[in-house]
Amino acid sequence: MHNDKEFLEIVNSGFDKLNFGKEPNRLYDPVYYSLSVGGKRIRPVLCLMAAELFGGDYKEALNAAYGVEIFHNFTLLHDDMMDKAEVRRGKPVVHLKWNENVALLSGDAMSVIAYKYISESKNLKETLDVFSDTALKICEGQQYDMDFEDNQDVSVDDYLKMINLKTAVLLAASLKIGAISADASDSDKDNLYEFGRNLGMAFQLQDDFLDTFGDVEKFGKKIGGDIVANKKTYLLIKAIEIATGELKEELINWINLKEFDPQEKIDAVKSIYNKLNIAKYSEDLIESYFHEAAKCFGAVNIPDSKKQFLRSFTDSLKYRVY
Amino acid sequence: MHNDKEFLEIVNSGFDKLNFGKEPNRLYDPVYYSLSVGGKRIRPVLCLMAAELFGGDYKEALNAAYGVEIFHNFTLLHDDMMDKAEVRRGKPVVHLKWNENVALLSGDAMSVIAYKYISESKNLKETLDVFSDTALKICEGQQYDMDFEDNQDVSVDDYLKMINLKTAVLLAASLKIGAISADASDSDKDNLYEFGRNLGMAFQLQDDFLDTFGDVEKFGKKIGGDIVANKKTYLLIKAIEIATGELKEELINWINLKEFDPQEKIDAVKSIYNKLNIAKYSEDLIESYFHEAAKCFGAVNIPDSKKQFLRSFTDSLKYRVY
Repeated sequence: MHNDKEFLEIVNSGFDKLNFGKEPNRLYDPVYYSLSVGGKRIRPVLCLMAAELFGGDYKEALNAAYGVEIFHNFTLLHDDMMDKAEVRRGKPVVHLKWNENVALLSGDAMSVIAYKYISESKNLKETLDVFSDTALKICEGQQYDMDFEDNQDVSVDDYLKMINLKTAVLLAASLKIGAISADASDSDKDNLYEFGRNLGMAFQLQDDFLDTFGDVEKFGKKIGGDIVANKKTYLLIKAIEIATGELKEELINWINLKEFDPQEKIDAVKSIYNKLNIAKYSEDLIESYFHEAAKCFGAVNIPDSKKQFLRSFTDSLKYRVY
Repeated sequence: MHNDKEFLEIVNSGFDKLNFGKEPNRLYDPVYYSLSVGGKRIRPVLCLMAAELFGGDYKEALNAAYGVEIFHNFTLLHDDMMDKAEVRRGKPVVHLKWNENVALLSGDAMSVIAYKYISESKNLKETLDVFSDTALKICEGQQYDMDFEDNQDVSVDDYLKMINLKTAVLLAASLKIGAISADASDSDKDNLYEFGRNLGMAFQLQDDFLDTFGDVEKFGKKIGGDIVANKKTYLLIKAIEIATGELKEELINWINLKEFDPQEKIDAVKSIYNKLNIAKYSEDLIESYFHEAAKCFGAVNIPDSKKQFLRSFTDSLKYRVY
C-alpha cells in the first residue's frame, strides 16, 4: 500500500503529463495553468487511498481521481470569478491573468475534461452517478453561499447545510469513487462516504476557526480576513445568535460600519467572540465532526492495519495547524 | 415511425415535466427558464429520428436527446454572457434577468444536468465519449470565434473550421447518439455523423447569408446586424479576400468607421458584396455542403423508405427561408 506522500507524487507527476488539447491556446492554457498551481491534492489522494483500502489497484481509480481534482479546480476558477478574487495560491486568478470571457469558457472546458476522465472509470455508471450528484450539490452550495451575502437571517443550520454541499460532499465522493473502483460493499462505500463528509465538515469549520484564531505563521495567510469582510462563517453566525444586549449591539455596529481600521475591527470582533466563548463552541463542533468521522471509519469492514495509511493522512490534516 | 412534429411534441412535453431540483431557486429557476424559452429543438428531434431510422425505440434515446438539448441551451446561456447579448428568443437573457453570477453558476449546473441525462443512455461509454468530445469542440469553436474579433487575418478556412466546431459537430453528434442507441453499424454511425456535420455547416452559412440577404419577414429578425457589427462571417471574410483596389479600400473604410448611420452602412456594404458576387459564392458553398450531406445520407445502409422522415425534416430547414 502507498502512503499519502507517494500518492501525491503519483498525482502530481500524472498532472504534469496530462494532455487534453492545445489549440486554441486561450482555451487550454488557462486549464493547464489552473491545474499547475498545485495545492494539496487531497481529493485525488483520498480517492486512490480508498481504492487500496479495499484491495483494489490504485491505477483503476487514477482517471477518476484526476477527474475529481480537475472538477475541483474548475469550481475554484469559477468561484474566484464570482467572488472577484485576485489571487489563488499566490498566483493571479485566470480572470485577471487573461480576462472574464477566457475564465468563463476555459472553466466550462475544464468541467467537460473532468467528465472525460471520469468516463474512463471502472464501474462507470455508478461512478458517474456519484460524481454528477456531487457536482450538482457543489453548485447548490455555492449558490447558498452567495445567497447568504444578502441575507441577514442565516442560521447555524443553514450554514452547516451550505458547507456540507459546497465542501464536504466532494471529499466524501472522492473516497466513495475510490471504493467503487475496488468493488467495495455498499455499506463500506456508505460508511466511507460518511467518514469523508464529516471530515469535510470538520476541515471547513477548522478553516473558519483558523481565519480568526489561527497562528499567522502556521496558517499561512492573514488572520482576520473573514471578520473584515463580514463573511458569514460559523463564528459570526453563532455570535449573532447568542449575543444579547450591549454586546450584540456592539457586534452589529461593527458589521454595519462602512469605514474602519481593519486591525481595530479584527481586535474588537475577536474580543466580542472571546466574551461569548465562540472559540469553544467552534472547537466543540469541530471535535464532534471528527468524532463522527472516526465512528464511520471504524464501521468500515476491513482490518485495522489497512486503515492506518488513510488515518495518518487525515490526522495530519487535522493537526496541521493547532 | 414518428415525424419531426410528433417528436417536437414529445420533446416539449418531456421538457415541461423535467425535474432536477428546486432549491436554491436562484440556481434552478434560470435553468427551467432557459429550457422553457423554446426554440426548434432541432438537436433532440434529430437524435430521436436517428434512433428510429435504425429500428430502435426512440424512448431508448430520449434521455440522451434531453441531455444534448440541455447542453446546447447551456452553451447559449454562457455565450450570451460572453457576447453581452440582451435578448434570446425574444426574452431577456439570464445575466440581465438575474445577474452575472447567477448566469455563470446556473450554466455550470446545466452542464452537469446535461451529463446526468446523458448518463442514462444505453451504450453508455460510447455515448459519453461522443458527447464529451463534442462538448469540448464546442468550447474550442466559441474560443476561436472570440479570437476572431481581435484578429484581422481570418481566412475562409479558419472560419469554416470555427463553425464546424461551434455549430456543426453538435448536430452531427445528436444524430450519431441516436444511432448509437439503436445499435447501428459503425459505418452507418459515421455516415450519419458526416451527414449532420455537413448539414450543420450549410445551416450556419445559410444563417450568415440570410442575415444580409434574407427577407426580413421570413427571416424573423433585422437584416444587416452582422454588417453593422463587422461580424466576421463568410460573407465579410470572402469579400475582404477577393476585393481589390478601390472596392477593397471602400470596404475597409466602412469596417473602420466608428460613427455611421446603420442603414447607410448596410446598404453600402451590401452594394460592395453585390459587385463582388458574394451572394453567389455563398450560395454555391451552401449548396456544396447540402450536396455532401445528401451524399453521406445516401450512403447510410437502410431502405430509402425509412429515410423519408428525416429527409423531409432537414429539407424543411433548408427551404425555410429562401
